[in-house]
Amino acid sequence: MKFLRIDLTTRTVNVEDVPEHYAGLGGRGLTSALINREVPAKCDALGPENKLIVAPGIFTGTPLVSTSRISIGAKSPLTGGIKESNAGGSVGTALGKLGITAIVLEGQAPAGALYNLVIDAECNATLEDAAEYKGMRTYALAEKLLARYGGNNGVLCVGPAGEYRMASASIQTTDVDGHPCRAAGRGGLGAVMGSKGVKAIVVSVKGKNPDAIADRTAFMAAAKVFAKAVRDSSFSGQMLPAFGTAGLVAPVNKAGAFPCYNATQGVFENWEKISGQTMAEVIKKRGGKVGHRGCSQCIIQCSNQYVDAKGKYVTSSLEYETIWSMGGMTGIDDLDTIAKLDFLADDIGLDTINTGVAIAVAMDAGHCKFGDGQAAIALMEEIAAGTEFGKILGNGPESVGKHLNHARIPVAKHQSIAAYDPRAMQGNGVTYATSPMGADHTAGNLLGSYLSGALDPLSPDGQVEASREAQILIASLDCTGLCMFASVVIRGDEARAAFVALMHAKTGVAFEEADIRTMGVDVLKAELEFNRKAGFTKDDDRLADFFYKEALPPHDKVFAVRDDDIEKTFEF
Amino acid sequence: MKFLRIDLTTRTVNVEDVPEHYAGLGGRGLTSALINREVPAKCDALGPENKLIVAPGIFTGTPLVSTSRISIGAKSPLTGGIKESNAGGSVGTALGKLGITAIVLEGQAPAGALYNLVIDAECNATLEDAAEYKGMRTYALAEKLLARYGGNNGVLCVGPAGEYRMASASIQTTDVDGHPCRAAGRGGLGAVMGSKGVKAIVVSVKGKNPDAIADRTAFMAAAKVFAKAVRDSSFSGQMLPAFGTAGLVAPVNKAGAFPCYNATQGVFENWEKISGQTMAEVIKKRGGKVGHRGCSQCIIQCSNQYVDAKGKYVTSSLEYETIWSMGGMTGIDDLDTIAKLDFLADDIGLDTINTGVAIAVAMDAGHCKFGDGQAAIALMEEIAAGTEFGKILGNGPESVGKHLNHARIPVAKHQSIAAYDPRAMQGNGVTYATSPMGADHTAGNLLGSYLSGALDPLSPDGQVEASREAQILIASLDCTGLCMFASVVIRGDEARAAFVALMHAKTGVAFEEADIRTMGVDVLKAELEFNRKAGFTKDDDRLADFFYKEALPPHDKVFAVRDDDIEKTFEF
Repeated sequence: MKFLRIDLTTRTVNVEDVPEHYAGLGGRGLTSALINREVPAKCDALGPENKLIVAPGIFTGTPLVSTSRISIGAKSPLTGGIKESNAGGSVGTALGKLGITAIVLEGQAPAGALYNLVIDAECNATLEDAAEYKGMRTYALAEKLLARYGGNNGVLCVGPAGEYRMASASIQTTDVDGHPCRAAGRGGLGAVMGSKGVKAIVVSVKGKNPDAIADRTAFMAAAKVFAKAVRDSSFSGQMLPAFGTAGLVAPVNKAGAFPCYNATQGVFENWEKISGQTMAEVIKKRGGKVGHRGCSQCIIQCSNQYVDAKGKYVTSSLEYETIWSMGGMTGIDDLDTIAKLDFLADDIGLDTINTGVAIAVAMDAGHCKFGDGQAAIALMEEIAAGTEFGKILGNGPESVGKHLNHARIPVAKHQSIAAYDPRAMQGNGVTYATSPMGADHTAGNLLGSYLSGALDPLSPDGQVEASREAQILIASLDCTGLCMFASVVIRGDEARAAFVALMHAKTGVAFEEADIRTMGVDVLKAELEFNRKAGFTKDDDRLADFFYKEALPPHDKVFAVRDDDIEKTFEF
Repeated sequence: MKFLRIDLTTRTVNVEDVPEHYAGLGGRGLTSALINREVPAKCDALGPENKLIVAPGIFTGTPLVSTSRISIGAKSPLTGGIKESNAGGSVGTALGKLGITAIVLEGQAPAGALYNLVIDAECNATLEDAAEYKGMRTYALAEKLLARYGGNNGVLCVGPAGEYRMASASIQTTDVDGHPCRAAGRGGLGAVMGSKGVKAIVVSVKGKNPDAIADRTAFMAAAKVFAKAVRDSSFSGQMLPAFGTAGLVAPVNKAGAFPCYNATQGVFENWEKISGQTMAEVIKKRGGKVGHRGCSQCIIQCSNQYVDAKGKYVTSSLEYETIWSMGGMTGIDDLDTIAKLDFLADDIGLDTINTGVAIAVAMDAGHCKFGDGQAAIALMEEIAAGTEFGKILGNGPESVGKHLNHARIPVAKHQSIAAYDPRAMQGNGVTYATSPMGADHTAGNLLGSYLSGALDPLSPDGQVEASREAQILIASLDCTGLCMFASVVIRGDEARAAFVALMHAKTGVAFEEADIRTMGVDVLKAELEFNRKAGFTKDDDRLADFFYKEALPPHDKVFAVRDDDIEKTFEF
């Protein structure tokens, strides 16, 4: 129950009790409250007034399964609004075991200075000069840092893209194997970390001072029920361990909602070459890993280790969103190339989504050809080298579109959409348009309702309500540190009751079922307030123009949810 | 009294009577009314829905002196709002004599296609294939077009920057000598012309069908009074013919309001090397021209022809704003280099202000050194060649600042300020912040009030009111085609009475003194309405953040007009 406040301007570290107004908050609930309260909404996202907050969830560090997520928050240099980006790996649990509620990076180091923040098992935090790591890519960096500080430690770090302060720069986190392959990818938070002058945060996994659990017996009982629900779910218990998130390629493509060739087609003709089934077969045949555990306390094991034809590690984990952004969107249908692009994104420290879509826009504008994997790899290396065009690419699809005078830029609030086309899954379009995060598939994804037939994906009817409830629920769950793939079981009555019991047992504060929704609404209200102060209006809650005008084959629909309906999304 | 509507999508030319709702409008009054009525405010400024309007003023084509101005309007790709940019030269009078109230370019030519619009003495307008002129710079282009269509014709054209659709691209117009050295520079209107697929508009000067003057006798009598006032003014009658606008270097620098080294100093230590006095001496010694007539019907002759040491033409006209943007802001104190940069801007088709400031931001960010003239020339050539960094430069200072992670970007509504620092002339800051045009020195310049001592430039008091009235007056005068330097005499009672008489005599419609203000307010209301529809809020009526935080030497003031006062600017 403590904050580590690191002032980079003065290079001082302060340990403080959690201020009363943040009591009981965790994860996204904490990052968003803190940003809304402490960061001037109109500040330069890359200046000293912005703050970068790393907060494990309420359950992170407890024995509950799949609770390794950390929320990272700041004002986004990409969207200009508030941002929370969360990631798995090993850092969250490490922070939880140290009893750290949040790390807050404030101020700004002098130009050119670079530091690592090192937190030991007794929670002593030190800023160490990181000049020797300057410009280093994340795999080499993680290897060196783990060799220096201990192989099991957790690392949060930026690659060259973060040091360049590119708007697509990610913060990479190490998985349980020590690979910096998990990412808080979206919103350019790596650029904020880079702007602070911080290259890496190394966190001891040997902490023995987690927050108290108010009623441990009740907690353990409910945790058992919840874990069983996760194991019993066909999605988290069967599909994900078998194919990983890549298992979504087939159903989304079949639904005509897999935007490809820069969102000019909804079905990728070569989808079978990049599907989860194909990926799993290739990996198994070559001796790689599927059903791999990437995050601490994970029982789902949706991760994989993709290997080359000789069985050598290429990347982990090859995910649906990356297969889409680096594959479908670019027309690249070769899994080996996509895996290489995924590795490069992790190594350079880039959001695979924003970067793949930036490449797709460049291809659509004629800069290179759709499907040209070697060109895409060369573009990634341009970003790493910080060439002029590399910088433009590293700032994302809107930057590329403007530079090349190309109007088809699939974004909302300057951030690229994800792998569900808003014209073929209209409610995901509502989420893209309205989420305070900018276009984001994790902010309120209605895929489940579409695949189950509960909601017609092509009709504008009912989408606003569905998006609203999905956004509220995920905002709530993002406070807990639970992995999204585990937390979906909360839709079942038994698991939901267990969740309520877990919240009560952990905090000792009364928590009822209705509080799930209240917690989510409170998060969204803080985020919306920040964005309003930053100057956002209802006009910002729109998709890129072409989604309203260019019909997407094969359904030949445009995005048809009316503006006045969209504006009702946050009528809580 | 007719519109030429050119649809580039269908390549058709329509001549139509002036629609009733535009009756009596001219210049900026007409361009802004038409954009507000016909252009979807949220459209892509570089897409087919935008329109580019060329409109001579109400007096243009009459015998009144100094009435050669044309207004060019469109939604701006730089500011995202409405834009009117006006220019002198020979085209305005030519259009006036043809009786053309407006040319309206609509739609968009197919990608890669390029046309010239050629208007003959009988007002026949033809779109001619311009493939052979593709990529051509403006001096070579104008020479070829005038050789082909007749040496006295007027030409409006874009250079490579307009074809690249850069946000700093200008539309150049020929002066009376046939040099394409006059510019509708601001707001990236050259990019709009380029996006339409139009390289040049050639206008015959042999038209003999100007609009009727309702009461010619009264008009000629009033015109004589007005012309005398212009001749008798010390500003337009003495200072401008002697030193050109460059005569302002000395007094603005003395006032500590000459922003230099990217607006980090208010006094340029080497100002005497680039002053109007020095410039006039150099030009005269080398056999160039001062007191040169650049525009049709001009009696002021503020223009000059700058020549090199061998007496060879370098550029025309070297103006105060360019001496500042390419000189003071960049720390370049060599007039020959500044003249060369001015020529390059005209030749490539670039706003000298936005481009000079873009170079200054690049210098401030360490891309090259302040004062390095050869580096600046090399950067101009990068823009012309369309290199990656050249494109960034060609999109203006904000594009450069973002690319180089440099926060000191002197803009309002994404457009660079002009040569009066808002911290040392606070009311000009109000105009920069609030003008629907973005930062613009011609939208309501209080320099006269400061130099005369009528208003304290350093105090925030009274600036909002002064800016409001100046913005209203200039909006009104921008409807008439009068040169700003002639129209300033309207502050005198006799000239103002003559102006009212001229309006009445020209149109035959009742016009009283109070109508001067009404005409200006109507223009601003249309512009503000468009910007509101485009999504602008009061938050857009602000200067770049650093003007509020970094004090400007030698007065060491920040911009201190309060936001809530700024918000009263348009309380008409």
